[in-house]
Formats: sequence, structure tokens, C-alpha cells
Amino acid sequence: MFYIGIDVGGTTVKGIVIDKKGTCLAEDSSPTLKGEKIAEVIATLAERLISTVGKPKAQFAGIGIGCAGMIDAENGTVVFAGNLNIKSLPVAKLVEEKVKLPVKITNDANAAALGEAKFGAGKNYSDSILVTLGTGVGGGIVIGGKLFEGNKSAGAEIGHMVIERGGNKCTCGRRGCFEAYSSATALIKRTKWAMEEDAGSAMWQSCTSENVTGRTAFDYMDTDVSAREVVDWYVKYLACGLVNLANVFRPQVIMLGGGISGQGERLTIPLQNLLNKELFGGTAYAPVEVKTATLGSRAGALGAAALLFGD
Amino acid sequence: MFYIGIDVGGTTVKGIVIDKKGTCLAEDSSPTLKGEKIAEVIATLAERLISTVGKPKAQFAGIGIGCAGMIDAENGTVVFAGNLNIKSLPVAKLVEEKVKLPVKITNDANAAALGEAKFGAGKNYSDSILVTLGTGVGGGIVIGGKLFEGNKSAGAEIGHMVIERGGNKCTCGRRGCFEAYSSATALIKRTKWAMEEDAGSAMWQSCTSENVTGRTAFDYMDTDVSAREVVDWYVKYLACGLVNLANVFRPQVIMLGGGISGQGERLTIPLQNLLNKELFGGTAYAPVEVKTATLGSRAGALGAAALLFGD
Repeated sequence: MFYIGIDVGGTTVKGIVIDKKGTCLAEDSSPTLKGEKIAEVIATLAERLISTVGKPKAQFAGIGIGCAGMIDAENGTVVFAGNLNIKSLPVAKLVEEKVKLPVKITNDANAAALGEAKFGAGKNYSDSILVTLGTGVGGGIVIGGKLFEGNKSAGAEIGHMVIERGGNKCTCGRRGCFEAYSSATALIKRTKWAMEEDAGSAMWQSCTSENVTGRTAFDYMDTDVSAREVVDWYVKYLACGLVNLANVFRPQVIMLGGGISGQGERLTIPLQNLLNKELFGGTAYAPVEVKTATLGSRAGALGAAALLFGD
Repeated sequence: MFYIGIDVGGTTVKGIVIDKKGTCLAEDSSPTLKGEKIAEVIATLAERLISTVGKPKAQFAGIGIGCAGMIDAENGTVVFAGNLNIKSLPVAKLVEEKVKLPVKITNDANAAALGEAKFGAGKNYSDSILVTLGTGVGGGIVIGGKLFEGNKSAGAEIGHMVIERGGNKCTCGRRGCFEAYSSATALIKRTKWAMEEDAGSAMWQSCTSENVTGRTAFDYMDTDVSAREVVDWYVKYLACGLVNLANVFRPQVIMLGGGISGQGERLTIPLQNLLNKELFGGTAYAPVEVKTATLGSRAGALGAAALLFGD
């Protein structure tokens, strides 16, 4: 059997065909079109992938879609996707009618989590959480090899768990969310603040406010006290959120994705230490590992394909 | 089919026999004995319940046990239970050998959550969370009608999610846990503090530090500003934790149990308002209701019996 995975982003729709082991048989992409046209884009891309593989359609189990926005997985509907100009579009049904294959859909963060769980850093575990450190803090939860999405797929909003009541303002309207401390956005903000506080710092000498990124503090942490402090600050809050997730879900592994996760062991080693120290009941009985995600931008399409794996 | 449910507490072991609808056919109890003897107590109680019902053993699906402590549900082992003097005891196997019926075991908080989910405040929902407000903050999570326990049943420690980093000390070693603000213990501490701060308060006039309970602030809230402030403080922190759980799990209902939940609508109404205000994405798509648990101290035994229900 072959499995088609489609990752719908704001600018590009990526497609992949894999077998059950995750071996890639074809890969392709199309520019994103907004509104209802997205179903046409997905269907055309899927058909192109099928011809590239060159096998009869009956050998394809179906099409899995990971899409930005609020998704009703059970009904196959994109409930809301601001950057795709979509409000209540039955994408699964529309694509199914065009391609005549079963279609499943989930949100892009969940798809990436399933991808990492099946083929990436989580492939040796049945229970894993992907935490993506990007513009926001997103991610997904895999329990017993299956995505956990909550009622009407509205759960798994792990970035919107308050870890410091009354703290920094979050885009969701609450204060003190995990995302307001552990996103790349929060890290950049803190880095700029630290630069302004310490005009003698190497960061301040070398960067301008405009070219600060989520890497800046890490780049200077070995030579600059202010940069080191920013990294320590960031790691402490990130660890706090990860321990919360570990205590509540107790997965076997937490995987870090998104831009900041590129720091690898500079993040995972101190995070693992803090997590081991604070994990409820200690680490002897049911430890939780912290790892870097391995699939990068392909995680979403791979996980989308895995939506069709069944039990 | 009949289902035996056993709730093992620190002083009493309670037993119940129900049918699939939750109708009670027999109910009984025994004093708790510590250490290995607990298996004997459970087995004897189960046999007594079976004779009370007066049906052949073949009509009993098995015995479900809810037990205080750290439980490995998969292996049927009580890993650690301090107040029962148990360390690594294969309770399920021991009881199975004596009664010759299948045995399943989970921790007492999980059993209560399953009881409320099947027969109590959650019976019309597939996804629910029970939050017990007692000495600590415990509870359990039911997803799609089944208990979610995490790897090696070590998850669902909802009381040990930090909501105020660096805040009040928790028994688990962290600071700022949900439990450190929302347990009865935390409420009593805050009430005492408020009384000492305001010697003119009705609470201070009527109570001594020794007879303050989790009800004191509620009892005086309509006539005493300080008492009102304590209740508002308590509700705000409790709401913060509930919104976190709602965003991460997105159940259909959150049920409040434990002593403090006896306040009923004095808690659920303001909590529902705060939750509706802060729930990620609003309440139009996938709302989360806040209710008071209804089964009281029978929730554990009822839920334990439901462990045998299968799919």
C-alpha cells in the first residue's frame, strides 16, 4: 500500500508518497491558492504524485492532509484558517470527490507530531509529544501511536497553558502562557531587552535590533554574560512547560522542533537536567527523554500520510 | 454480566457490585490491612459480595480495583503506596489467584474519574476530567470513554502543573503547582493568612486558627470583605488551572470533586465564566462545561468496576 501526505502551508503545498515504513516514493509541491481553490490544488498535486509513482490508484490507501488552522478532523472540515482565507470548508470531502480516494485531515502541528512519532525522533516510542518552538509554541501529542486531538480536535494547544499567572501577554488573550516565554518571538524580545540593558555586551556591539534572531543569544552565550543570561532564562521557562507536559501526559519522549530546536544539545542537555530534577515522582519509574526532532520541514507531510495507517 | 469494584483507602476498603448500567446489586466494606495482607482483604470482600448477589461466578466479568498510590496498571502492580506500606506488590495477580476472576487495577483518583465519567456528572460525555480539590489536587482524565494514564500509568498528575513559576512551594518539590493554590490545604492556609491580616473580619471574630476549614471563607463571603477576597483569590487560581487543562485536553466537561466541590454553584458559576473568557479560540466551537461531581465517595468503587467494561 502507498500513502499520500499533503502539508498545506501559507505559501506552499508539499506532497509526498510513502510506504508503511516511511520510504519516500515521490515528492512534489505546488504554490498555495487561497479559499476554496485549495481543494483543487491538493487534488491536482495528489494526482501528479500518483502518476509519478506509476502504480494503479487501488494501491493507494488514501490522502492525509496537514493544514494550518482550526480543523475538525472527525468531519474533515477546515473550520477556520486565517492565512488561507478559509472559514468552514469541507476539504476532505472536496478532495475525496476529485481524487476518489479516502481523505483524512488534521492540523499541521498535529501532522508534524505524528510524523516525528512514526519516522523521526519518536519512532522507538509509543507516547510522544512534539513541541515546536517557532513564532508560537505549537505541537502535538501522540498516545499509543495515535494522535490525541481532544474534543472536535480543539485540544493539544500546549502553547496556551499558563506557567506564570499574570505574566507576559500572550496572543490568545491570557497572560503568562508557555508560548509567551518559549516561542522564538519571546526569545527575540528577551534578547533585544538584554542588549538594551547591557550596551557593553558583545551582542549589543555586533547586532542591531533589526537583525536579532532566535539564534543571537546562543551565538554569544559562551563569551557574553548577558547572552548567557538570556539563554538561561529561556531554558528555565521552557523546562517549566516541558515538566508540566511530562507530569500531565507522561510520554516517553518530548521532541523539540521549530527554528530554536536547531540548537540541539545546547537545549536538550540543560532541559533534560531540569526535567529530571522536577519530574513528579522522579525518573526511576517512568522517565521522560528530551530529544531534538529529526525530520525538519518534511515532518508534516510524512505525518499526514501516516494518518491513513489505521490500527 | 456483573462487575465488582473495590476502592482501597487508607482505613477502609469499599466494595460494590454493579451491572453495565451502574445499578448497584451489593455493597460492603472491610477495614484496610497494610502490606501484602491487602490482597487477602480484597479477595475476601469480593467473595462476600459475590455470595450476597447470589449468582454463579461465571456471571461476574471480574474485579476492578482503585488503590491509593503509584500503580502500574499494565502489570497490575502497586508500585508504591506509602499509607498502605506497599512497595512493588502484584496485587492484581494475587487477587486473581484467590478469586479466579480477571482483575484490573488503577489508582484511586483515576477510578473516581472513570466512575464520574460513566455514571456521574460526566455520563453524557465521552471526554471528561475530574479535578478533586482535597488535601491535594488530584483527578483523572477520560478520553473517548477510556482512562488516560500516561506511560506506565504515571501521567494525569494534574495537580503538578506549574501555574505560577517561582510561586508557592508544593509537596512535589516544585514551586507554583496548581495543587499549591487549589487544594483545600492551600485554601485553608490562605484563609488563616487573611484572618490574621484583618482582625476586624467576621472570620477572625468567629473562628480560631484551629477550626478554620475549606468552608470558612465560603461561609463568610457574603458578609465579610476579607472572606470574599479569599474566595476570589481561590477561584482565580482554580480557573487558571482548569483553563490550562481545557486548552491542552479539550474535554467536553470538567468535573469538580473533593471536599471543596461541595460549594456547588458558588464555585462552578464563577469558574465557568472565567473559563469561557479565557478558553483558547472561544466557546463557540468546542465549549467546556464545569460541573460538580455527583457520586461523592462512591465514585472510586463505581469507576473501579467500570475498568472491566472493555470496549
